Amino acid sequence: MENRVCKLFGIKYPIIQGGMVWCSGWKLASAVSKAGGLGLIGAGSMHPNNLRHHIRSCRDALEGKLPFGVNVPLLYPQIEEIIEIIVEEKVPIVFTSAGSPKKWTSHLQKHGVVVAHVVSSSLFARKCEEAGVDAVVAEGFEAGGHLGREETTTFCLIPQVSETISVPLIAAGGVASRASYNAAFALGAHGVQIGTRFALCEESSAHPSFKEYCRGLSEGGTKVLLKKIGATRMACNPFCEKVEEAEQSGVGPEQLKELLGSGRSKKGILEGDLIEGELEIGQITSMISKAETARQIIQDLVSS
Amino acid sequence: MENRVCKLFGIKYPIIQGGMVWCSGWKLASAVSKAGGLGLIGAGSMHPNNLRHHIRSCRDALEGKLPFGVNVPLLYPQIEEIIEIIVEEKVPIVFTSAGSPKKWTSHLQKHGVVVAHVVSSSLFARKCEEAGVDAVVAEGFEAGGHLGREETTTFCLIPQVSETISVPLIAAGGVASRASYNAAFALGAHGVQIGTRFALCEESSAHPSFKEYCRGLSEGGTKVLLKKIGATRMACNPFCEKVEEAEQSGVGPEQLKELLGSGRSKKGILEGDLIEGELEIGQITSMISKAETARQIIQDLVSS
Repeated sequence: MENRVCKLFGIKYPIIQGGMVWCSGWKLASAVSKAGGLGLIGAGSMHPNNLRHHIRSCRDALEGKLPFGVNVPLLYPQIEEIIEIIVEEKVPIVFTSAGSPKKWTSHLQKHGVVVAHVVSSSLFARKCEEAGVDAVVAEGFEAGGHLGREETTTFCLIPQVSETISVPLIAAGGVASRASYNAAFALGAHGVQIGTRFALCEESSAHPSFKEYCRGLSEGGTKVLLKKIGATRMACNPFCEKVEEAEQSGVGPEQLKELLGSGRSKKGILEGDLIEGELEIGQITSMISKAETARQIIQDLVSS
Repeated sequence: MENRVCKLFGIKYPIIQGGMVWCSGWKLASAVSKAGGLGLIGAGSMHPNNLRHHIRSCRDALEGKLPFGVNVPLLYPQIEEIIEIIVEEKVPIVFTSAGSPKKWTSHLQKHGVVVAHVVSSSLFARKCEEAGVDAVVAEGFEAGGHLGREETTTFCLIPQVSETISVPLIAAGGVASRASYNAAFALGAHGVQIGTRFALCEESSAHPSFKEYCRGLSEGGTKVLLKKIGATRMACNPFCEKVEEAEQSGVGPEQLKELLGSGRSKKGILEGDLIEGELEIGQITSMISKAETARQIIQDLVSS
């Protein structure tokens, strides 16, 4: 029986590469799609014109023969322009996140786009299904970057979402090894979305210092902070310690926003500033220690 | 091939019932052992003489034919007396937690006791193996009650511990459904320890109001608080809100200890005070909604 996620996206293996800020441009997305998974361009860290460039470069790299997609955080300031570019460029697949799936799903589908939406609870998974999405990504507390408020872990979340929806379910958060790949299916998922391991691979556009630092982290090397303004998992570093200290002393949202400032994740992930940057990465980074290509990752996961 | 956990403990199914404060006396422990799992008496909430009574009652209920064990938090004030009773009463199996496995493991083993120790990281799993334990329980962030500092989830923890140790590995935290039971083995465990689902079953000595309240919780219905004095997962209720508010305003450990006072978990779990009590329970409580017996739980998990 054909896997539902493979069938929906026209891919060989039910492995999606998460569309991550500062990591997933056309190089990573096309490498993943070439290796049999689904590569996603992360629009969250791109100006609209830059996104257009990445879409065209990705299609060229795939010689128009293999599917790829774009991840769009719906709270993006220039969201209308982003959606327009996606439609104009005939992007076949879009993963939306951070916003209501009601707003853009049917518009994209009318233009032939397959739409998946990322959630962190069964309640929002049901809302996705009501909005007509083609697939749901359920992401657990162990994931890197922005997280849901409820802190539901992948192990608790997937079986509950699986009982809630009938469209294909993609598990995210903590998937990095063959063991966790297999366990995701046992929990009820039809496919997986992998962020951290791809963020640290060769084709990722993250800074080499960021990759090396994250590959060197041990268990407990990440923390979830900034809960008062939007919970975010990041690697422990001086910036992270500064935020933690402020939080423990009870500072409010305004002071936290000021402390965060703007461009922190760019500074950390793209520019490799390990002191002042915000290093968004998932908890499972402690299992990743070596440099590898996107193809090697996929081959490792699907080898029995 | 025989399951390693079944072989070690002499049980039919590789299912351990967590030894939980105020829930797991001889009634629950013997019901689980009779149904083919391993029942544990939770010594953490018992005076030494009360523990002796529970051990004898459990053995009587099992007619001396089936194994059972005792869970011992090693930071217990009368720990020497507790260990003495366990040895005198010839308890066959002990699960230790909250302390160093070096202190008591060999002493217990010399008296014929099989020893497992509960950890929340690979680092401590290795220390357990060095201390000579017979099995390791690795417990993830989704579990109820006291938690490790590092917040590593079951989905991230089990594959890492599995690569670290060679003694049998028991997965804990979030295991409650057939899907998660199967996933735990896929992650690399040889057995599971289940707390929450057994805490809410008929033979648990928790108060009926506590059980009903927890069975009614939705996703996001638990929180991890008290990190400054010992992270604890509890159900959201007025006491929980009070603690959260205090923490967000930045109060220190001393004030938190004062706010917690003593006997909070007894008040909540045993006495059923849903307003002022601390209701320790795991995240997966949102998947449990009906009253059931220990035997029904085990039969549900092992039915294919």
